[in-house]
Amino acid sequence: MTSTSVHRPGATGTRFSGPRHLISIRSTPLERLRHILAEARNFTPDQSLRGRTFATLFFEDSTRTRTSFIVAAQQRSATVIELSTASSSLNKGETMIDTAATLAALGVEAVAVRARQAGAAALIARCVPQLCVINAGDGRHEHPTQALADALTVAESFDRPTFDFQNLRVAIVGDIGASRVARSNIALLGSLGAQVTCAGPRTLVPESLASLGCKISWSMDETIADADVIIMLRIQFERYTTTNSTISSPREYRAHFGLTESRARQLNPDAIIMHPGPTNRGLEIDPAVADGALPGVPRSVIRDQVSNGVRVRAALLNDCLAES
Amino acid sequence: MTSTSVHRPGATGTRFSGPRHLISIRSTPLERLRHILAEARNFTPDQSLRGRTFATLFFEDSTRTRTSFIVAAQQRSATVIELSTASSSLNKGETMIDTAATLAALGVEAVAVRARQAGAAALIARCVPQLCVINAGDGRHEHPTQALADALTVAESFDRPTFDFQNLRVAIVGDIGASRVARSNIALLGSLGAQVTCAGPRTLVPESLASLGCKISWSMDETIADADVIIMLRIQFERYTTTNSTISSPREYRAHFGLTESRARQLNPDAIIMHPGPTNRGLEIDPAVADGALPGVPRSVIRDQVSNGVRVRAALLNDCLAES
Amino acid sequence: MTSTSVHRPGATGTRFSGPRHLISIRSTPLERLRHILAEARNFTPDQSLRGRTFATLFFEDSTRTRTSFIVAAQQRSATVIELSTASSSLNKGETMIDTAATLAALGVEAVAVRARQAGAAALIARCVPQLCVINAGDGRHEHPTQALADALTVAESFDRPTFDFQNLRVAIVGDIGASRVARSNIALLGSLGAQVTCAGPRTLVPESLASLGCKISWSMDETIADADVIIMLRIQFERYTTTNSTISSPREYRAHFGLTESRARQLNPDAIIMHPGPTNRGLEIDPAVADGALPGVPRSVIRDQVSNGVRVRAALLNDCLAES
Repeated sequence: MTSTSVHRPGATGTRFSGPRHLISIRSTPLERLRHILAEARNFTPDQSLRGRTFATLFFEDSTRTRTSFIVAAQQRSATVIELSTASSSLNKGETMIDTAATLAALGVEAVAVRARQAGAAALIARCVPQLCVINAGDGRHEHPTQALADALTVAESFDRPTFDFQNLRVAIVGDIGASRVARSNIALLGSLGAQVTCAGPRTLVPESLASLGCKISWSMDETIADADVIIMLRIQFERYTTTNSTISSPREYRAHFGLTESRARQLNPDAIIMHPGPTNRGLEIDPAVADGALPGVPRSVIRDQVSNGVRVRAALLNDCLAES
Repeated sequence: MTSTSVHRPGATGTRFSGPRHLISIRSTPLERLRHILAEARNFTPDQSLRGRTFATLFFEDSTRTRTSFIVAAQQRSATVIELSTASSSLNKGETMIDTAATLAALGVEAVAVRARQAGAAALIARCVPQLCVINAGDGRHEHPTQALADALTVAESFDRPTFDFQNLRVAIVGDIGASRVARSNIALLGSLGAQVTCAGPRTLVPESLASLGCKISWSMDETIADADVIIMLRIQFERYTTTNSTISSPREYRAHFGLTESRARQLNPDAIIMHPGPTNRGLEIDPAVADGALPGVPRSVIRDQVSNGVRVRAALLNDCLAES
Repeated sequence: MTSTSVHRPGATGTRFSGPRHLISIRSTPLERLRHILAEARNFTPDQSLRGRTFATLFFEDSTRTRTSFIVAAQQRSATVIELSTASSSLNKGETMIDTAATLAALGVEAVAVRARQAGAAALIARCVPQLCVINAGDGRHEHPTQALADALTVAESFDRPTFDFQNLRVAIVGDIGASRVARSNIALLGSLGAQVTCAGPRTLVPESLASLGCKISWSMDETIADADVIIMLRIQFERYTTTNSTISSPREYRAHFGLTESRARQLNPDAIIMHPGPTNRGLEIDPAVADGALPGVPRSVIRDQVSNGVRVRAALLNDCLAES
C-alpha cells in the first residue's frame, strides 16, 4: 500500500537537510548572503550539481535573468528544465502552485520563479515544501539575485573583498516605486554598510519609500554629485499606458532624470555606473555612457553586472542544494 | 555518387534492429507493456542513452507530459531536442511528416509526438521509418504513456509487483468520450485484469463506449461506491464553446460528477484517487481531495502519477532504442 | 578597482586568437571554406567543445537551421543557450546589439544569428567583438551555412572529395531575388568551379542578378534540361500579400516553374534534386519528386542536405572556437 521505498525522481528528502529558499534579501540572514557572495567571487565551473535537477519557471519574459540561471546551472553540470507560460499547461488554467508541485513530482529540486505578483515565490515555497525556491523577481517586491550580482560588482570595482561597503555612497535613480531591483538593492547594499539615496520624480518616488532605509531625493543632480555608485533603473514602459502614465514625456524625463553625457561628465571619475538592463538607450541613460565609451567619465560596469549574475547564481544554486 | 559510407547523424540503421514504436496500448503486445512496467519499477538514472538523440514534437501545449519525457531522457543521458509549434517551421506551412522527416535527417532517433489529430503518431511512424515514434497523446484516441504511469501507480499502491490487477475495481469518471487517457486506461488496466467502469453524464458517455471493454454508468455515486481506484478526468474547457457545450453548467457538473469532499468521505478508505492533471480545482475534484489533505478519505496519488510518468518514460526510451 | 584577474564566464580572450566569424560566403576566403567542408566530411561526434558555450539568437522562426546548430553543438559537447523572440527581452524593446552583448557577458562565446534584416550578423560582429558570430540567414542577403551543406551534398553525390566542381552545371529555380540561399549558393558553388544558372519568372529574377556571377534565364525547361544539380527554392508565401504578389497564381507558377513529375522524367537521370526546405509540396516541387519515390528520375538529396547541415555546422563551430 506504500511506495515510499521505491526510488523515484523527486524523492530527495534524504539528500539534504531541507530547502534553503532565497525569497528576499530582507528575510535572509546577512551571514548567508555574505557567504553566497564570497563563494561567487571564487566560482569556477565544476560538476558539483551533476544529477541534480533545476528548473526555471518564468511567468514573465526575461532574457538575462533566465539565461543567467541556465548558464549558472549548466556550469555546475545540473540538469535544467525550462518552463515558461508560452509552452505550458498554464494556458489550460492550471494554478502556479499546481505547476510547481508538478515540477517537484517530476524530480525538480530547485526552481527559480519569476512572476508578476509580489509574493509568488514565497507562496510556492510555502505550498510546495519539496522545492527549494529562488525568487527571480516578483512584481514590485524583490529581485534578490540581481542585488547579489550588483553587490559583487560593487565589491570588485572598489576592491572590497569582505563586502564591507562603509563610506560608499550609492545613488539609485528612476522609477523606485515600481522597482524590485531598487528594493533588493536598498536592503542588501544598506546592510553591507553603504549609504543609499533614491532619486526620481515625485510621481515615482513617494516619500514613504524612506521607510525602506534609504534617503529620498527629487533632484538627480544633487544625488549623483558625490556618489560612488550610480544605479540607473529602467523605465518600464510596458507597465504604463497613456492614461495612467506618471511620466510627463520621455524628453522631459531624460532632461531631469536621464544619465546624459553632459551629466556623466560632471561626476566623480572614480564612480561606477550600473543598470540592471535592459536599457532604454537615450532615455534613462545615453548610449555612450552605458557603453563606457567616454574618456574621463565614470566607468560603466553594466556588463560586469551580467557576468556577475552568473557567478552569484552558480554560488546560490550550490548553497540551495548543498548536501546536508 | 554514393555517400552511405560516410558517418552522419541519423545513420542508425546498424545500431538496433528496428524502430519499436509505442502508438497505442491496444496495438502493443501485453508482454511488452509488462516488460516496460517492470523496468520502470527498477528505474535508476544511468547513461544508457548517452550519444542517442531524442526529440519532443508537440503540436499542443503540455507541461507534465512534455517535461516528463525530457526529464526521463536526461536521466538516461540522452541528447534532447525540443520542437513545438511556437518556434518551428510549422508556421511556414510545413507538414507534420516533413517536420518529422527533418528531425530524422538531423540525427533524431526517437520522437514523442503530441497532436490534436487522432492517428498523428501512427502516420509519422508509417511515413518516417527511421524514427521510433512514441504517441504522447493524439486527439481523443490514446495516451499510452499516461496509462503506463497510471498502471505503475496502481501496482505500487496495492502492492501488486507483477501487475496482476485481478479483483481491482476501477472507476473512471468524467468526459470519457473525449478522453484519450480513458481509452488507454480502459485498454491497459482491463488487460491487466481490472474491472473498469466509466461514469459521466449521458452527453459525454455514450452507450457505444461499452465496446471498449468497460461497463458504462450514468451515476457517479453508484460507480465509485465500491471502487478501489477512482480516476477523475479533466473537463477540457478549451475544447468546448458556449454553443456546443454538452455540460449544462459547471455547478451542476460538480453536483453530479465532481469528487467533492462529501463524496470522498463516503468512499472505501483504502481506495486511491487519481487524476491525469492538470486539475480544474473545485470543478471535477475539490482541492482538499486532490491534495490528499483530508483524514479518513481515500489517498490521492496524483503526484505519484507524475513521478511515475518519468519512470515509465525512461523505461520506454530504453526499450525503444535498445541495441539489437 | 579592477576585476579582470577574477575568473568569469565570458573572459575567453586568452583562449583563442580571436573571433572567426562566418558572415557571408563572399567575404570568407575560399581556403577557409574548403577547410570547413573537408572537416565536415570527416566529422564524428566528440567532446572538443566541452565547457564552451554557444547560443542561437533567432529573430525569425526556424526548425531545421536552428535545430541543426543545436544538434551540431551538442555533438561537440558544447553548452547550448537558445534565445528566440518569443521568450526574450526583445519584447521589452531591447536592441539586437544589447541582447548580443548580454549573451557575451553571460559567457557565450559563439552565436548563430538569424534576422529579417540583411546585415544583422555583420552588425553584431562589429559591435560585440567578444562574440564569434555565425550568420544563420539575414534577410535576402546570405545563408552561408546552408550553402556549405549544399556544397558538401554536391561533392558527395558526384564523388568530388576535393570540392572541385568543374564541369558541373547547377540550376537554381524560383524566387531568386528574395533568396539568401540562392545568393550564398551562387557564390560558393561558383567559386568551387560550377556553372550556375538561375531561372524563374521575370518578376522574381531581375536581369541585374547576373552581376552575382551566374547566368539568368526565364525558362525553367531550358535551364534544367542539361543540369547536373537542380536546386528548387521555396516560394516564401509569408513574405507576400495579395496586393504585392508578384506571382500570378500558384497554379500558373507550378505550370511554369514547378518541378512536376512530368518535368522530372525528362531530366538527366544522373542529376540530383535539392531544396533547402521547408517545401511547399505540390507548388514548387511535387511530393513524389521531393521524396525521391519515382524510378528513372533524378535522385532527391533533400534529406542529405539536412544531415549535412549538422556536419558542416559542427565543423564550423570547431573552426570558430578553435584554440589558437
